[in-house]
This record gives sequence, structure tokens and C-alpha cells, in this order.
Amino acid sequence: MTSVITLLTDYGLEDGYVAACHGVIAGIAPDVRVIDVCHAVPSGDVRRGAAILAQTIPYLPKGVHVGAVDPGTSGARRAVAIEAGGRVFIGPDNGLLSWAVHAAGGAEAAYEISNEDYFLRPVSPTFHGRDVYAPVAGRLCVGLTPADLGPERPPSRLVSLPEPTSLMREDAVEGEVVSVDRHGNTQTSITARDLEALGVRFGDTLGVWLGRRQLSMPYRETYAAVPPGELVAFTDSVGLVALAVNSGDAAQRLGLPPGAHIRICPSR
Amino acid sequence: MTSVITLLTDYGLEDGYVAACHGVIAGIAPDVRVIDVCHAVPSGDVRRGAAILAQTIPYLPKGVHVGAVDPGTSGARRAVAIEAGGRVFIGPDNGLLSWAVHAAGGAEAAYEISNEDYFLRPVSPTFHGRDVYAPVAGRLCVGLTPADLGPERPPSRLVSLPEPTSLMREDAVEGEVVSVDRHGNTQTSITARDLEALGVRFGDTLGVWLGRRQLSMPYRETYAAVPPGELVAFTDSVGLVALAVNSGDAAQRLGLPPGAHIRICPSR
Amino acid sequence: MTSVITLLTDYGLEDGYVAACHGVIAGIAPDVRVIDVCHAVPSGDVRRGAAILAQTIPYLPKGVHVGAVDPGTSGARRAVAIEAGGRVFIGPDNGLLSWAVHAAGGAEAAYEISNEDYFLRPVSPTFHGRDVYAPVAGRLCVGLTPADLGPERPPSRLVSLPEPTSLMREDAVEGEVVSVDRHGNTQTSITARDLEALGVRFGDTLGVWLGRRQLSMPYRETYAAVPPGELVAFTDSVGLVALAVNSGDAAQRLGLPPGAHIRICPSR
Repeated sequence: MTSVITLLTDYGLEDGYVAACHGVIAGIAPDVRVIDVCHAVPSGDVRRGAAILAQTIPYLPKGVHVGAVDPGTSGARRAVAIEAGGRVFIGPDNGLLSWAVHAAGGAEAAYEISNEDYFLRPVSPTFHGRDVYAPVAGRLCVGLTPADLGPERPPSRLVSLPEPTSLMREDAVEGEVVSVDRHGNTQTSITARDLEALGVRFGDTLGVWLGRRQLSMPYRETYAAVPPGELVAFTDSVGLVALAVNSGDAAQRLGLPPGAHIRICPSR
Repeated sequence: MTSVITLLTDYGLEDGYVAACHGVIAGIAPDVRVIDVCHAVPSGDVRRGAAILAQTIPYLPKGVHVGAVDPGTSGARRAVAIEAGGRVFIGPDNGLLSWAVHAAGGAEAAYEISNEDYFLRPVSPTFHGRDVYAPVAGRLCVGLTPADLGPERPPSRLVSLPEPTSLMREDAVEGEVVSVDRHGNTQTSITARDLEALGVRFGDTLGVWLGRRQLSMPYRETYAAVPPGELVAFTDSVGLVALAVNSGDAAQRLGLPPGAHIRICPSR
Repeated sequence: MTSVITLLTDYGLEDGYVAACHGVIAGIAPDVRVIDVCHAVPSGDVRRGAAILAQTIPYLPKGVHVGAVDPGTSGARRAVAIEAGGRVFIGPDNGLLSWAVHAAGGAEAAYEISNEDYFLRPVSPTFHGRDVYAPVAGRLCVGLTPADLGPERPPSRLVSLPEPTSLMREDAVEGEVVSVDRHGNTQTSITARDLEALGVRFGDTLGVWLGRRQLSMPYRETYAAVPPGELVAFTDSVGLVALAVNSGDAAQRLGLPPGAHIRICPSR
């Protein structure tokens, strides 16, 4: 019996939408702890939601993990419950959950969420978080099992987002911007291990290509290792290489949106 | 004995104000679950706070529901506790609670909150949320009853906000913009039932007058039913007609503030 | 055994950082209540974080109070646990905790947090909130004591921020802007007692110098005592003199950043 539910949505905190989900859960499973993963995913940004959930999941207790970022609410896509690593993921089958499921060890079983007995009725076509995911999550904490929710779906048929990739070249590694945090730190898909494989060590200087621009910056353990206002590459808290400006905003300075191409090589 | 307190304020999350309320409650009623309805109500916007609370209340467990949006803090108006539908609403008697009380079935009894024994002392004239509402809400969860708070007030004497209204014409319905959410979806006071009464069905085209502008748009079950970037009218998650742009911002495109007049008719 | 943990950070709510801290705590101490003090401290603004924590602490139950605002993460400074007034404060030894510790009665004992057995491993140099403070806070709620964390440090050696000060002159009091809240209310370091000592009473008119500008405004119990749009000085919810515009934004109107000098005297 699970005692933790986590919520990730693009509902924002300017309305009562998140509270409605909390309220529905509290009505069904009053003793469950609810952890808000993030509600400020940019509207409809499935990729950003997937990145936040996947990077947070290793630090969340095993539980029922709800994701609700769905630009095509009530379109053709189905709602799914996915079992992975002792966790249950609930949300739209649009790839939002795919990176987190992968981070949890991969899907062991999946079920379509179609049994309307467990929904709030009527179901609003634009608010599945409140009417489908929240009541189902609550019920999974008080006795329901994923198999009760609807027909099984082969995990191989679930929608997956392409993972942000990095590509090793002979003398460089290429990747993309994955996300930008509140401080302007720009996370890339290049891992600390990629740089190690190129022989890079903390303290080295890197050559960084952003499109046609070439920059040079130190590679350090943390952004705080350079003077305020200076650019630095460092290994972020999930093991990815990030570009930062100490006490500044690297995303703003470099103008790098998520998806932008980046190439890093050891400096000659 | 209630075990849920909900909080709606315009305190924002940039300060410790909301935390102070949580702290005061936790000190008095450590086992109570506190649900944050919304703390991002625009500063002093009683009408917006009233709309959020009323639209969320059907999904919240019965409990003590605190509202604190009060441009005239400590002016002439009184603090009140209102019993409605097994719930207790706590806040200023400025209309903030009125729509939610109505949604809960109407006021059965009301009491002025004047017994200072239950307040934090001294009471800051600008922070009744912390010094009056939070301690009173906590105590209502551990044995106090609304009648202990102060003299009874006839529900008919409570301040009410005028409800957003819709007006049926022979071949059209008129209403106003109630609120705009984070996605730019523009909620009107016109209900799905109003449109049904005019013979409108999902899939029909609507004529929509915004002041002197006339627009034409489809009426669909959800904003996702139209291609990205296109205008659509749909029934939102509380049964009201809303204007949206799929994957876009209707409020920005249409320039519609809360209160703006709108008229909808079936397209000829 | 403590049952409350509070969190103050500059992590923002746009990412999963705060959730990771909640998750780590929930995994170690599942029954502990976690209160979010504030996560919107401006990035690296130790002084603002210190002010929010100190002004909120009197309203929080005794517990473990985590602060994580640290522009120099993993630099030379140490992580510390400070005992004060039955509370334990956890965070960087950069002054962030100093005003709150003072508000709680002053440090009785302090310990360096250096025993890595209690950390998440590996420790990210840029996310001590998740890898050091959260697990240590959780463990302090389930049996660990501060003395287990590392060697004792004399409280006199802890880093302290200079307190915002006010200076009594013969016929005036000088101070500085401490902080600005969401409504634009501008809190100064001048206390209501300072004004009392000058013979000022509610209802009096004040002369207020902001640099070279001189303004005149009434001193009232609350900003709501003046007509909308008018400037007013009032005693705020923590006993400090604040400048406000009723239903407006004083910080914007006056252009007063934190740290700005202010001088107030009774009007002749």
C-alpha cells in the first residue's frame, strides 16, 4: 500500500487547479503524503515536464507519480498507468512519463486507464488531472491495483520521447540544451562521463561551440569556482554538464533555448 | 472534528507570510492537513479570489476554509465565520467568501469573529491571516465551534459580491469574462447550459461579439479539438464557456480583461 | 524528537529542486510535517533570505529549520547546525541563519556538518540542499542529535550578517530599507518603538527623507487608513515601520531598493 503521491503539472499556481487535485486526493486517501514535484512546467511543454520528472524521481519515495502536461487533452491519446521499479506512473501516453519510467528502471507493465468507475463524473475533457489522475492515484493508495484500471498495454507500445542525446566524436562531444533553471544555468545532454572520456579534468579549459560561436571557458566542479560574472562549465546536480555564470544568468547571456546544439572539446 | 484546513490568500509566495499561517496552524493543530488553494490572487482582487475559491470548493474535503484577500484590512468590515454545507468559511466580510458559500449550499449560520482570546496577540492590523484566521482555523479543528467566536450574525446581512451573470436573449446569450487562467484561457459567465438552451451543439459555429468586434469560432468539447493557433469556444472544467487558442493565449490575442462584456449566438 | 522541518531556499518552484528535498526528507522521516517557508528568495540573496527566515521564525513550531541560499556553494564556508531556543538551524555558515538564530534567542551550541555518513552520496557540490541539508534534517527528526554531525564550533565564530540598524538622532531616526514585499510595501529597519521614542503617535504626519528627496506622509496603524493611491507609513506585521501606497506599489513609486537610506522625523 503506497503512502506517497507526487504531482507534476503545467497548471501553475495562479489558479485553484492544483488545489482541486489535492482536494480530490485528500477526500479519497486522507493519510497519504502528497509531494508537489513542479506545477510551473511551461504550458504544454511535454519535454520540459519529462526532464523535470526524470531528474527528480531518484529522490522521491516510491509511490504513485502523476504527470499532467498534455497539449492534446482528450485527443486520441490514452491515459496510462505504468509500473516501473516499484513505482506507478499515471498520466497521458504522450511521452511525458517516458524518461522518468526509464530512470526508474523501465516499464514492467502498463495499463490503459479506462475504467470510469474510478473517475470523478462527469469527466471534464480539459481537466483529467482532477477528474481522472487524482482520483485514480488516490484509489491506488487505498487498495486498487493498476490492473484494475483497464486493459493491459504492452510497454513497447507506449509513446516515448526521444532522449536528449550526446554524440562522441574523436576529439569532441556534441549534444543539446536540455533545460534552463531559475538561475539561468543551462543544462546540456552532455554528461560528465562524456568529458572524462575525452580526457577532460576539472580545471581544464574547454572550447564550446554554440552554433557558429566559439567560446572558451573553464571546467570546474561548481559555478562558484570562478569569479562572479564569469562563464563556467560544471557538472550539475544530476551529472550533466551545465553552462553557468557565477551569480549571473548564462541562458540570458548566451541566448540558448532548450534544444540548441552545443559542441564541447578539450582546449588545445 | 475537522481535519482539513484550506488557505486562499493574496500573500504571494515571495515572502514568509503563507509559511507564518502554516506555522501558526501547525502549532495549534499539528495533525491537520493544510491545502493551499491559491496564494497568487492578484493583490486585493476580492472578485478573483472569490471566483477561484468558489470553483475549487466542490473538490475540497469538508473543512475549515480560510480566505484572506482584503484591500481594506482592519477597516470597518468584520471578520466572519460562516457555516455552509458542513463546512466553515473564515475570512473578511467583504464578499470574498460569498460565491464559495453559495456553491456550498448557502449560509446556514454566521458569527462575527470577535473573541480575542483565540487570536495571536497583539493582532497586527495588516496581517489578520496570521493573527486571526490561522489561529481560529486551527482551534476550530481541535474543539472550538463557530458559535464560540463571537455574536451570531444573520446570514442575510453578510456582504455578497454580485454574481457574474449571463442574460438569455431570444437568439443570443450575454455575459462577461470571469477570469483568465495561466494558459490564457478566458472563462466567461455563460454556461454550457445557456448555449444548449439556444440549440447550440458541439461542432457548431458561434458568433461571438466582444464589444464591437465580431468573431466566428467553433464550439467544441475541448480546445484541443482545433488545430494549434486557432480560436475555439469550449466548456471548461467547471461547466462555463471559455474562449481559448489551442497551444496559444486567447486572453492576449483577444485583449479581454475580467469584466469585459461578451455576447454569443448560434451562427446563421 | 522533532516533528517539523521548515525549508527556505532560493531554488524557485520552476524546477524539481524543492521536490527533491521533500522527497529525501519523506524517505527518511515519513511522518514529519514539512513547511515551506519560502523558495522564491532572489538567487543568492543571503540578506533577503535571512530577513524572511528571521521574520517568520517566531510563528513556526520548534523544529529543524533548513536554509539554503548560498552563492558560494562548496566554497570555503562550512555547513553548520546551530541550536537556539529549542530549535535546530541547518545551512551554510554564511550569515543566512544568523538573524533567525538571534530571533530564536541566540546560538547555544553549533556543530560543523561534516560527518558524511549522513549525507546522500555522492554529494553534488551545487545541491547541498538535497544531498546534505535534507537528509541531515530528516535524520535529526528520527534520533540523530546535532552533536553527531561533526565537531563543535564556538557560536562566537559563526558568520553573522550585520543587522539592519536604525540610529536615533535628537529629532529624527535613520535606517534603511530591509525588504519589499509582493504588494510593494517597503519595510524599513526603523521600529515602531523608535518613532514612539520621538513622540510620534498614529495620526501624526511624518517628514521622510529618501536620499535628497523629502516627502510628507501620515503615520497610521495600517495602509488601509488612507485613501487608495496615497502614501502612508505604518507599523507592519513584525513591528517595523513600512512605507506603502494603499492599493498601490510604494516600492515602484518611490524607487527604493533594499539597503536604501531613509530618515524619518516628526513633522514640524
